[in-house]
Amino acid sequence: MRDVCVLSAASTKYGKSDLSARELALEAAKQAILSAGIDPTEIQAGFVSNAFSLSEKQGHLGPIIMSGLGIPDVPASTIESACSSGGSAIREAWVNIGAGLYDCMLVVGVEKVSQLDTITATTYFSFGSDYIFEGACGASFPGLYAAIARAHMRRYGTKEEQLAQVAVKNHENALHNPHAHFHKKITIEDVMRSPVVASPLKLYDACPFSDGAAAAILCSEEFAKKITGRTSEHVFIRGSGRAGGTGALHQRPDLTSLNASVLAGREAFSRAQITQKEIDFLEVHDCFTIAEIIAAEDLGFFPRGEASKAEEEGRTRIDGDVPINPSGGLKAKGHPVGATGVGQLVEVFEQLNHKAEGRQVKDARVALTHNVGATGGSCAVHIFEFR
Amino acid sequence: MRDVCVLSAASTKYGKSDLSARELALEAAKQAILSAGIDPTEIQAGFVSNAFSLSEKQGHLGPIIMSGLGIPDVPASTIESACSSGGSAIREAWVNIGAGLYDCMLVVGVEKVSQLDTITATTYFSFGSDYIFEGACGASFPGLYAAIARAHMRRYGTKEEQLAQVAVKNHENALHNPHAHFHKKITIEDVMRSPVVASPLKLYDACPFSDGAAAAILCSEEFAKKITGRTSEHVFIRGSGRAGGTGALHQRPDLTSLNASVLAGREAFSRAQITQKEIDFLEVHDCFTIAEIIAAEDLGFFPRGEASKAEEEGRTRIDGDVPINPSGGLKAKGHPVGATGVGQLVEVFEQLNHKAEGRQVKDARVALTHNVGATGGSCAVHIFEFR
Repeated sequence: MRDVCVLSAASTKYGKSDLSARELALEAAKQAILSAGIDPTEIQAGFVSNAFSLSEKQGHLGPIIMSGLGIPDVPASTIESACSSGGSAIREAWVNIGAGLYDCMLVVGVEKVSQLDTITATTYFSFGSDYIFEGACGASFPGLYAAIARAHMRRYGTKEEQLAQVAVKNHENALHNPHAHFHKKITIEDVMRSPVVASPLKLYDACPFSDGAAAAILCSEEFAKKITGRTSEHVFIRGSGRAGGTGALHQRPDLTSLNASVLAGREAFSRAQITQKEIDFLEVHDCFTIAEIIAAEDLGFFPRGEASKAEEEGRTRIDGDVPINPSGGLKAKGHPVGATGVGQLVEVFEQLNHKAEGRQVKDARVALTHNVGATGGSCAVHIFEFR
Repeated sequence: MRDVCVLSAASTKYGKSDLSARELALEAAKQAILSAGIDPTEIQAGFVSNAFSLSEKQGHLGPIIMSGLGIPDVPASTIESACSSGGSAIREAWVNIGAGLYDCMLVVGVEKVSQLDTITATTYFSFGSDYIFEGACGASFPGLYAAIARAHMRRYGTKEEQLAQVAVKNHENALHNPHAHFHKKITIEDVMRSPVVASPLKLYDACPFSDGAAAAILCSEEFAKKITGRTSEHVFIRGSGRAGGTGALHQRPDLTSLNASVLAGREAFSRAQITQKEIDFLEVHDCFTIAEIIAAEDLGFFPRGEASKAEEEGRTRIDGDVPINPSGGLKAKGHPVGATGVGQLVEVFEQLNHKAEGRQVKDARVALTHNVGATGGSCAVHIFEFR
């Protein structure tokens, strides 16, 4: 497999939008194309990541988006892995370019859910769980992650205030992210006093439903040289990992870890041939505050049960020794499901190009993204390097 | 890219089923695993092809199916390209194995729609069109393919009786296919007298809504040798092509051809380095009778406007010089959307192993599959060879 690099990455603002999924996707894709300095006709294939476009009565998004870009001949399938759809799409583009099948590809992730009321949106999201065992029985994601949080609290003594600290940090980071859904500073007290959604998780422990799209142009080193005149000073994919986990929680021996994260992380590190110490920052899948803590442990950045203390001590802040979610994460940047994994790459691209104004991780050169489907039925981890 | 071979391929019966998508997928997958002679734990990754599982309130099928097989750690994304989802999934498995990322993969296509009434099912299918321009305006697929048929009739003098001949042949072929939805011999008169759905297309010009699943184990030559003790006498993927087309019909200069089929066919032939003459039979995407005629022309098996005559003359029958759809095709074997492309491979696998009892194409060694999304927004073509 040859090296794959990221020529550009762009995002719409996340939040409530009046645009349709097709319009959001086109906005992000056009911006990525413009920023890459390529002509749309140079794109040879694409992947769309999306989970719920049928709620807008539109499937088969590939030809819709490619037609909208004026390149209808270009093949583009949709990849769905619930909330890890974006990471999965990046993975497949990496394989296709790495294998030499294509030199230049578009990956565009998109979700539009604000046309649904909150109950319907929650129900749609629960289609990502093992529905007959979970969603249909009323166990939607807040409840499932609450069970995970309880297990972690019981085993490791993790405190609700420590979970709250994740939300406080991510809201603070998002203040400086123009793409973010929320631009609102919050305190531990705000989180603790927010309405209980599924105990011990409160409203401010949860990511929002967001609309949004994110896109990236991925290409071979040779193609990047053709466009930019140089083979270095690009963001490269240094490692990639993908793994699965049981669809339902009741099938797991342990709720304090997502096995898919452990395995995907292991594969990505093994392919990248580096260690956790060399990663300058992480974008992890914090759909709920507990998820960030478990991710940091599953990926080997902290010993089991110690990530919550690290959060408390400020070690995961932008100026800490293990910055996590400088973008604001799913918690505050927002979570347009199909876009989220691609959006993590947008943050990495901006950070590694030292253009993350106000939230720049100092001297960032290597970063990791971690994108989870549902409660860990799937996970994609990527390691990126600027070189 | 290294060579990729098909270790096994299996299918449920197509038709109306009481099983859920998960159960159908597991039935086909287990059969494929058994027939491949492997242990499930030898599967390293998978792709699920599906379009409408949300209608059953279940997304994220990968972990559901892999958990059901007892291998939850194995990553599996869903690939959706409307009716070409199955062909697209085979394509991506070919890339992943060809690139050396995995040695053994499961591809499983599935669809379950019989829980929907006919109107709702038609509406769901229309989500595969460019919905705001077509489905929402009442132009569902019968109407769109009727426009295509009209254009072909006007330009080439194609007759309704010639379209009917496609249905008659495919129903006859399906008589001998145990997987087929229909086991019913029909005559030209039956077709001509069947209720008009969208003139000139009648009920018997259209494929049915089917439930069903199909699965295949794809692997590297080395893996096949490890399992079977031999590197030859397998079905190999000799060529693969993928292309897109405009989402909506109004964006096209010509309705008598699907450009996605032309381009995907060209890529597959170019990769296979063979010509049409060397193909022993075709499984093409005959969602409507007109679609088979246009496919045969788009893929270069007959000059423009001459496929209908070839159908009339019996040249496309199992004993003709260009056998098309010995399985019975979508028309009579059935069309469980996400399964269809994988099901075409099941027919190829049985034919090339000379196990298509009652419908065997004599001395079949090389075959082509052609899988279209919607009215040609996407297309996947594969060429398989027994060697």
